[in-house]
Amino acid sequence: MSDQLSIYGDSGSGNCLKIRYVAEHLAIPYQWMETGVLTGATRTEKFLTLNPAGQVPLAILPDGRPLAQSAAILLHLAEGSSLIPADPYERALMFQFLFWEQYSHETAIAVRRFQKHYLGKPDDQIDPALLKKGYAALQLMENHLKSHDFFPANALSLADIALVAYTRLAHEGGFDLTPCPLTKSWIRRVEDALPIA
Amino acid sequence: MSDQLSIYGDSGSGNCLKIRYVAEHLAIPYQWMETGVLTGATRTEKFLTLNPAGQVPLAILPDGRPLAQSAAILLHLAEGSSLIPADPYERALMFQFLFWEQYSHETAIAVRRFQKHYLGKPDDQIDPALLKKGYAALQLMENHLKSHDFFPANALSLADIALVAYTRLAHEGGFDLTPCPLTKSWIRRVEDALPIA
Repeated sequence: MSDQLSIYGDSGSGNCLKIRYVAEHLAIPYQWMETGVLTGATRTEKFLTLNPAGQVPLAILPDGRPLAQSAAILLHLAEGSSLIPADPYERALMFQFLFWEQYSHETAIAVRRFQKHYLGKPDDQIDPALLKKGYAALQLMENHLKSHDFFPANALSLADIALVAYTRLAHEGGFDLTPCPLTKSWIRRVEDALPIA
Repeated sequence: MSDQLSIYGDSGSGNCLKIRYVAEHLAIPYQWMETGVLTGATRTEKFLTLNPAGQVPLAILPDGRPLAQSAAILLHLAEGSSLIPADPYERALMFQFLFWEQYSHETAIAVRRFQKHYLGKPDDQIDPALLKKGYAALQLMENHLKSHDFFPANALSLADIALVAYTRLAHEGGFDLTPCPLTKSWIRRVEDALPIA
């Protein structure tokens, strides 16, 4: 137990990097505990005691209590900050995009990136549905950005940070962002706002 | 545009029924717009204008603005109610379970139920990973209930409502709850608290 936030995370995982981005943006001190998802480190008895789901990121809050699920950690760290819109409807749309990202975006773009980039699978051994689902997610984002600068509206929110994490790495999953110029501009805008090195 | 909440939903979908459970529990008046996921009703031009993701549930708020994603709708409807814990850590854990449900529970238990119960697929044509993933989710819940009455703690929260929707229908996905007596008791407890007819 320390008096500082600890983050168990894999530096190659967008879900884990989201926590780092928010902590650094909000100047919250933290200790990063590198925990590789391919090393078995999330399946040890000790880790499963802290997070029975066996997943990173896992935050150990300054009081020693554990918190899992990337978006839940983001919401906890950002409470009271401008990353959570004050307007109830905008806040509801931020939640809409946070849940959409985990259900319809990450499950295609991050999953295909993992299989291609980390497991080294050739394209013909990857479920073709992932490519279709991922491009549908990217198209939805591109359409949203025709009338907004950020997600859900016109100021940086947690939804941008959740969405940018894997969108900026989508090429590693074999996704071509050339047909998505607004998304490419938005990635740079979010990277500059955070900033992401 | 009406001055009442409208919910576009499929009565067979746990994600849609969650909204009904919360609206009824909190005595929020609503109009239910039956929208079958197998009928193409979520793919019409009109529907896609309201929700580009083409999914139900979709709420049209009393002021006419749309809101998608079941958990985002739940959070909006329940704002300020006892279904969202006042304690920051308990609230964070509620979010943890809301995101976990959509990522690790629904994607196995609801998906297998859909394939078996709605599409009528025989077991040997269903990805066997769904059974394993679903039972792992059920075991995590059973373990949690060894030391808590509800999710995340000891009073009914949105996490219970999100989790109960498909857990109570898990048998339709071929999941046997016999090894999960605490989960079976919790289902009855949540059904009684809501109540679910």
